[in-house]
Amino acid sequence: MAKRRIVVVGGDAAGMSAASQARRLDRDLEIRVFERGPHTSYSACGIPYLVAGLVEDPSRLVARTPEEFREQGIHVSTRHEVTALDPSSRRVTVHDLVGGRLFEEPYDDLLLATGATPLRPPVPGIDAAGVFGVSTLVSGVALLRFVEEQRPRKVVVVGGGYIGLEIAEAFNCHRGLEVSLVERAPQVMGTLDPDMGALVSQALREVGIRLFLEETLQGVEVRDGRAVGVRTDKRLLEADLVVLGLGVVPQTELAKRAGLALGVRGALVVDSRMRTPTAGIWGAGDCAQTFNLASRRPFHVALGTVANKMGRVAGINLAGGDAVFPGALGTAVCKICKYEAARTGLLERELTELGIPWTGATIEESTRAGYYPGAGDMTVKLLAERPSGRILGGQIVGIEGAAKRIDVVATAIRGGLTAQDLVDLDLSYAPPFSPVWDPVQVAARRLLSLLKD
Amino acid sequence: MAKRRIVVVGGDAAGMSAASQARRLDRDLEIRVFERGPHTSYSACGIPYLVAGLVEDPSRLVARTPEEFREQGIHVSTRHEVTALDPSSRRVTVHDLVGGRLFEEPYDDLLLATGATPLRPPVPGIDAAGVFGVSTLVSGVALLRFVEEQRPRKVVVVGGGYIGLEIAEAFNCHRGLEVSLVERAPQVMGTLDPDMGALVSQALREVGIRLFLEETLQGVEVRDGRAVGVRTDKRLLEADLVVLGLGVVPQTELAKRAGLALGVRGALVVDSRMRTPTAGIWGAGDCAQTFNLASRRPFHVALGTVANKMGRVAGINLAGGDAVFPGALGTAVCKICKYEAARTGLLERELTELGIPWTGATIEESTRAGYYPGAGDMTVKLLAERPSGRILGGQIVGIEGAAKRIDVVATAIRGGLTAQDLVDLDLSYAPPFSPVWDPVQVAARRLLSLLKD
Repeated sequence: MAKRRIVVVGGDAAGMSAASQARRLDRDLEIRVFERGPHTSYSACGIPYLVAGLVEDPSRLVARTPEEFREQGIHVSTRHEVTALDPSSRRVTVHDLVGGRLFEEPYDDLLLATGATPLRPPVPGIDAAGVFGVSTLVSGVALLRFVEEQRPRKVVVVGGGYIGLEIAEAFNCHRGLEVSLVERAPQVMGTLDPDMGALVSQALREVGIRLFLEETLQGVEVRDGRAVGVRTDKRLLEADLVVLGLGVVPQTELAKRAGLALGVRGALVVDSRMRTPTAGIWGAGDCAQTFNLASRRPFHVALGTVANKMGRVAGINLAGGDAVFPGALGTAVCKICKYEAARTGLLERELTELGIPWTGATIEESTRAGYYPGAGDMTVKLLAERPSGRILGGQIVGIEGAAKRIDVVATAIRGGLTAQDLVDLDLSYAPPFSPVWDPVQVAARRLLSLLKD
Repeated sequence: MAKRRIVVVGGDAAGMSAASQARRLDRDLEIRVFERGPHTSYSACGIPYLVAGLVEDPSRLVARTPEEFREQGIHVSTRHEVTALDPSSRRVTVHDLVGGRLFEEPYDDLLLATGATPLRPPVPGIDAAGVFGVSTLVSGVALLRFVEEQRPRKVVVVGGGYIGLEIAEAFNCHRGLEVSLVERAPQVMGTLDPDMGALVSQALREVGIRLFLEETLQGVEVRDGRAVGVRTDKRLLEADLVVLGLGVVPQTELAKRAGLALGVRGALVVDSRMRTPTAGIWGAGDCAQTFNLASRRPFHVALGTVANKMGRVAGINLAGGDAVFPGALGTAVCKICKYEAARTGLLERELTELGIPWTGATIEESTRAGYYPGAGDMTVKLLAERPSGRILGGQIVGIEGAAKRIDVVATAIRGGLTAQDLVDLDLSYAPPFSPVWDPVQVAARRLLSLLKD
């Protein structure tokens, strides 16, 4: 009997987590991975720090190379793009991007782990030298080389999401360049409520980043083929380097052409076992939708943590196991020089849209005991269902040491805890780490009193 | 009608939390607090950092002074010791330690918040100059003065619990003195399992603290009335300063003489509302027992976090409200120079004694993404009930940035989460904060695989 054959499309977080997991659990599977780029399993999240000069070598961002996967008995073909998919005959068409050959590859099970595509608006000048995206290691290395060779002085970052903020930090705090950040929305970090987003804007300005909110990219000014500025609807910003961090959309062109079901934001529809509704086809990572544990509805989030977990679950199931990924909360954290911002669960706007009655509480506290050196301010916001008090969201903005506390909120949401439960939590305390009432609990106390009103 | 009159014995964390809470909720109560010492509401946990020279002034450790409480309408008498209690007539006898006067004070409700007494073994020389305890702000200030005036060079710390470790850190890392630590048990930080305790011992030795385990204090060598050394059962250690950190016992002499019910370790028996079985008498803080949320049994723990929470609940109930303190987990964290240690819930030994079948998993991981500057090693141990996988304990030892993660474990225990739930948690990630799988989740994955064996 021929071996069961699994084909994985995409060789990064989700795809390689799945392949490794399946390999570990079933030595008899044949596992073939096709990856369009030259790398496997790298930390896309590390690119801002590579660009900042904090990572000694780009290879440090690669968790495992194609060779290492091959040693595990996983057939990895890099620079191979899957261009077509026929679910009825269970075959994919593969394009060898180096050799130029096109071939068909049969599968028993197919995992789509194609990731997400960065948005790149078709404005004039967008393809000029000096304009970079940072979604792949290849693009990160190209940006690093540009920075080291061209020594730019004025950087414009377009987009105020996580990547945009981290890139702005990299050039401002670590490279000492003049950084302007352009964001179309009235706030950066749109995954925060406006009041908390305003604190991030304040932090950006305080560290010296020039912030242009409610301005839309209209084009890149080009001279001699090189970017020399960014034109918004309100002004022209000088720039000898432009970095785009405009967010991503699920990369599901292949799936769409094959007639697979697409859901939120065009992401692949998968169940909690990572199965699509189409026989033999699975999906995981940034290309797939997942389940929001706070809203109890499908949603899409492009984060490495979630991609890794989805990949692991897909891998277990591909190997005949039975694993379930219950869902996520969009928990995220971001460092901006000495400041930190984090969030989990739902926003005010989302709660209202869902028709969930809610109460929110926001407090300011110290990151450590007030008398301990390095103590700084942090703001915690908690959102809870009314009248139950069940925690549904949390946001933190503050000084170094503040933000990782979001994990307590994420754990509380997962556990169905209420504001009262948070107040009662036995969290750790010593003066170098926290005030005696952890700031999350101070927020919970405020929330509790508001819930009683 | 006369005002209802509440008497509080003890003016620190639990007592003043209760008094403040009751005052806020009921403006008509008469609230009288008697405190033996000169201070109210100070951070005993801050004393090691005061001694280290990190706190600019001892007054910084005082959260609120007697005057501030008086402004809130709370009658605070410092240097007043309650020496007797008659539950049948609802009266206490108070000794004015300054004026010398003895008087009786009636109460409608009495809150005992007498704290804990540091152990001070009656060995030769224990009362010599240069031997210090650090349980009160008065003793902390005396130690600070001694250090600044006498400039000791060789310090012996007796006792390897939290306070002992923090005092050893203070003199080693911040004052640059030669520090020896003597501990009777085979490990420091007895609230950890031996394997994790060994990592703390290793950390202490690495930062240059001389560690003498399984050695018992026999006496203090005295010359001209001053301590010059510490004698253990195995050696004589030179010392021009000796600090005792031998742990505490609940301070319940007064309660005992009045015939109140005493429980674990001689702590006051209270229910979840902080009521003792004796009518009109309540207890909170280090003098009272509480409920262990992991073992589901009464236990005693002397920690500021728990004392504050018990005090708050007592205060709400004293004011006629209805609050419950569900219990604690003994969650604690400790900094030793660049190292950190933390714990929550039950130990291996306790699980075995309770007859709970358990599985433990220990892993090493990086505090941040491996390529991010400042990333260091940390060890996470998780203990779970078998076969349910319900998390019942956690311990962390590692480099700066490691230990506050214990809060996720404490929250998970509170929420009844299992190893599988921990694996699925949506915790925050960015390279400066964590690897993509948080170390707690890596431990949960290991635990999960061991639970399946």
